[in-house]
Amino acid sequence: MTGPHDLDPADLNDAALRDHAVAAARGDAPFDLLIRGGRVADVAMQEIRAADVGIVGPLIASVHAPGARADAARTLDATGLIVAPGLIDAHMHIESSMVTPAVYAGAVLPRGTTTVVWDPHEFGNVAGLAGVDWALAEAARSPLRILTLAPSCVPSAPGYETAGADFGPAEIEALLARPGIHGLAEVMDMGAVTSRAPRMRGIVQAGLASGKPVCGHARGLTGAALQAYAAAGVTSDHELTSAEDLLEKLRAGLWVELRGSHPHLLPEIARALAALPACPPTLTLCTDDVFPDDLAQSGGLDALLRLLVAEGLPPLRALQAATFNAAQRLGRPDLGLVAPGRRADLALFRDLESFAPAHVLRDGRPPALPVAASARPDFGAPAPPRFAPADFETPATGPTARIATIDRPRFTQWGERQVGVRDGRLALPPDLTRIAVIHRHGRAPAIPRIGFLSGWGAWRGAFATTVSHDSHNLTVFGHAPEDLAAAANAVAAQGGGMAVAQGGRVTALLPLPVGGLVSDAPLEDVAAAFRAVREAMDAVVDWQPPYLVFKALVGATLACNAGPHQTDLGIADSHAGRLLTSPILEDGLPA
Amino acid sequence: MTGPHDLDPADLNDAALRDHAVAAARGDAPFDLLIRGGRVADVAMQEIRAADVGIVGPLIASVHAPGARADAARTLDATGLIVAPGLIDAHMHIESSMVTPAVYAGAVLPRGTTTVVWDPHEFGNVAGLAGVDWALAEAARSPLRILTLAPSCVPSAPGYETAGADFGPAEIEALLARPGIHGLAEVMDMGAVTSRAPRMRGIVQAGLASGKPVCGHARGLTGAALQAYAAAGVTSDHELTSAEDLLEKLRAGLWVELRGSHPHLLPEIARALAALPACPPTLTLCTDDVFPDDLAQSGGLDALLRLLVAEGLPPLRALQAATFNAAQRLGRPDLGLVAPGRRADLALFRDLESFAPAHVLRDGRPPALPVAASARPDFGAPAPPRFAPADFETPATGPTARIATIDRPRFTQWGERQVGVRDGRLALPPDLTRIAVIHRHGRAPAIPRIGFLSGWGAWRGAFATTVSHDSHNLTVFGHAPEDLAAAANAVAAQGGGMAVAQGGRVTALLPLPVGGLVSDAPLEDVAAAFRAVREAMDAVVDWQPPYLVFKALVGATLACNAGPHQTDLGIADSHAGRLLTSPILEDGLPA
Repeated sequence: MTGPHDLDPADLNDAALRDHAVAAARGDAPFDLLIRGGRVADVAMQEIRAADVGIVGPLIASVHAPGARADAARTLDATGLIVAPGLIDAHMHIESSMVTPAVYAGAVLPRGTTTVVWDPHEFGNVAGLAGVDWALAEAARSPLRILTLAPSCVPSAPGYETAGADFGPAEIEALLARPGIHGLAEVMDMGAVTSRAPRMRGIVQAGLASGKPVCGHARGLTGAALQAYAAAGVTSDHELTSAEDLLEKLRAGLWVELRGSHPHLLPEIARALAALPACPPTLTLCTDDVFPDDLAQSGGLDALLRLLVAEGLPPLRALQAATFNAAQRLGRPDLGLVAPGRRADLALFRDLESFAPAHVLRDGRPPALPVAASARPDFGAPAPPRFAPADFETPATGPTARIATIDRPRFTQWGERQVGVRDGRLALPPDLTRIAVIHRHGRAPAIPRIGFLSGWGAWRGAFATTVSHDSHNLTVFGHAPEDLAAAANAVAAQGGGMAVAQGGRVTALLPLPVGGLVSDAPLEDVAAAFRAVREAMDAVVDWQPPYLVFKALVGATLACNAGPHQTDLGIADSHAGRLLTSPILEDGLPA
Repeated sequence: MTGPHDLDPADLNDAALRDHAVAAARGDAPFDLLIRGGRVADVAMQEIRAADVGIVGPLIASVHAPGARADAARTLDATGLIVAPGLIDAHMHIESSMVTPAVYAGAVLPRGTTTVVWDPHEFGNVAGLAGVDWALAEAARSPLRILTLAPSCVPSAPGYETAGADFGPAEIEALLARPGIHGLAEVMDMGAVTSRAPRMRGIVQAGLASGKPVCGHARGLTGAALQAYAAAGVTSDHELTSAEDLLEKLRAGLWVELRGSHPHLLPEIARALAALPACPPTLTLCTDDVFPDDLAQSGGLDALLRLLVAEGLPPLRALQAATFNAAQRLGRPDLGLVAPGRRADLALFRDLESFAPAHVLRDGRPPALPVAASARPDFGAPAPPRFAPADFETPATGPTARIATIDRPRFTQWGERQVGVRDGRLALPPDLTRIAVIHRHGRAPAIPRIGFLSGWGAWRGAFATTVSHDSHNLTVFGHAPEDLAAAANAVAAQGGGMAVAQGGRVTALLPLPVGGLVSDAPLEDVAAAFRAVREAMDAVVDWQPPYLVFKALVGATLACNAGPHQTDLGIADSHAGRLLTSPILEDGLPA
């Protein structure tokens, strides 16, 4: 099939398969598999009813009255179970779980998710086309149905950071022409979309010309700005900030990918959705980002379904959003319903509160798990240098200097401070934190570019990470240069990852050797190491939720957001059009 | 755009258009058109709310708070009106209204229908590829958005009738490869689908391989037969026979095209739909067949909406089915919602009971009406011969003969009768009606093939028609051979149409010179002439509803249905596999 959006694989069009399915449905041949005794969740009719399901190969051949048929090669007793379409995660980044696609599949398939829409944004920013190629190859071999998108923001703030690649309109157009690419991934540079900046205009236009979905990231957009963003041709959003925001996005006709990564919003969102006359046909569900320990402990899309239902959203509405609606959004008529002629991607849930499946089928069979590991890709990144503590010092003449600071985590602001100079270097007061970004993709010098954070408290150690949105350069935070060097060297020695150092020695280490983004270890190991890093960081920083939290570390360099952010090029404020290559505003000031 | 199903025209992807739309949405440029003071029907949210709509070219640029903007080249005062997406007729045959596509557009656009899905089944059966080519050319120049399908059943009963063409799997595959062809039209030969008869199997497989919708006709299918039909890959149905049938089709996961052509079913269907928790996202609306006088008097899809709402279906549910759901079915993300970035196909209704629009926009403008007539196509059909009364006699030796009869209108059965012979010809008793089918497409001899109907009462005249499903050969009914000849000759002289004769003279005539199916006259003229034909027939036949009705005349040769039907080859019973070339079973019997 050369179907809608080039999304439909041809396997269901095999004539012999259809012959067999029709004969089995008629009653003239046995089913390959008969699911007996269960109840079907019909999300189109919003009802649950007793029915048996006959399967032939990857195809649902018949959904019929309980007990009407008994002839099948195999029978699955579904007594007490609810036969639902497999869950579809409408927008996510596997990289956020810090495991390979193979390991990710092993984590979510048993939880009922059979399809994910993957934006390999981080691999694109780190490894460019090689990263996307690897993502496509992993998707092709996965028992999880992984629909890969073309990352639209490589880098997220062109001119303000150096990522591992640069995808302009021509690269995007070439990617979108590939059958394995299912759409343009979240367009984050919202200002560039609505100002029609040439590069982003070209990227969005390439998305429109492809006829594939153009996905959005409309964080905080409201009123005229939101209308303009949609008028440009972007058709979805997952960056919800409130129930009011959700309703405005739905009323703007966007496909909303309601995400589980911001659970504090879900109670009000569930209430708002439950108050509507029906599930909007444009509502889908997604995970977006799930840390490895959360994935191991709570799951992915299943966790979101549990939360929404616990907060009062009727289960069949939640399930409609997670199945049929998503299939429609994706132009996948083979998915999303338990009905004859559709694909047998099914989750047999124990109930629609726990969403715990007793069985999961992809293409009519239990998926083969665990997935064999693939060869570790070589993205050709240069070996990072070793660092000395002095590399994290900032030379100055003094007696004092006036420096620029990046004030407040998450919602950053420009600040200034006058600091002393000792031995030809800035003598940093305890409440300022060094942030050093070191380019690691071989496209710029691998030299620490240093800035200063305020509002992060007094640090008792350092943190180094190659997961650092969105360019994922090696980023090091801390106060004492010895700690920064120790953490940075530990990460560099592993080919990427996260490390914590205190007193000049490493206290926790999570190796992420695949592109500096993910590990190819089992999820449990990655989750445990990640948890250890988080716990080690509790000894370094006094967290102050909701903004001074661990998650703020991996977003501290997100230069496409408003306000100043440290990057490998300096302190960047893409919204204000400002880039400071050195934090020293004025040197040689009196004491 | 080379979009889903090749359905999306590229016009909305113009970069300058998007520049303008985004600027206008932002507030930095005026709209081309501002619809002010109205309320928007949001079928996704199932709510009606006050909002203004800013349009740029064919695009909705902004849907914003009332009065928020005033800058526009033109303003449309929508005070008191409801701004809704244009209606989408999900399945229909323009031919049934006996007017050209240009005239049809002029009839339905002012009534709020902006898109129709046309199966040019009758033109295909009459003129083959030339007929479909003409349909596509007419669709391309129409202000109505006409999405043309590939007729799947040319002829409807292969081997039992001679149509004007023969579309096998190869022809269907070639048609489906054309960008202007949007899917495979209703697959009527249900038995062949589920028995996997080679020709129909090939046609359905070609539909699947195209990735375009494969539309159905699942009349009376239930249980295992329905499951088998869907398992073959057919994904819709419009042949509803009851509310129970509707619910079974929806539960089978089919897209239901609920039709207005069988209004007696609508009360129970509206009740059943209103009792559901929500509008099923798989429910669409269609007209299927509308006679010209009904079209002129009551309209098309708007009439169905009125009836459903009058019977208790909530208006926004009906509207969701007629707009967003249909757009989804068709893979047309540009249609079906009043939202930024979507196409400005809009109907501004006075209310959601009358569904009477005060304004209709296609691509942001009032459609240019009336549509200029196109040149009358020449399908190359041979000039029909002139007939003498003797041509409608049946030679026999007698003294008596035993003949086969076709008993009962609509739901036909085989019968037999022994009749006298006089002057070498059957002497027909008054309660038997002659039916003569004369091939008219130049692919077989143009000789009357005669059979006999019982259960049609005593005819006082004759009726001739070239609208005669599905091969549309010249079909003549009556008792007195003089009347049959007069009616047949009147139709033949016009190049097709309908005629009534009594006492050897024509009492009503509807010329249908375009393929013998439609007129290129204005709708009012066609409707008046058609009404005159119906009234003239009231003097010929004593109708006995619900089955002995005028409509039964144009379906009397529908050989794909169960039971015997007269065709140009004889008395055909495709379900029983029987074809009688002569109605005389036995001649030379005693008196």
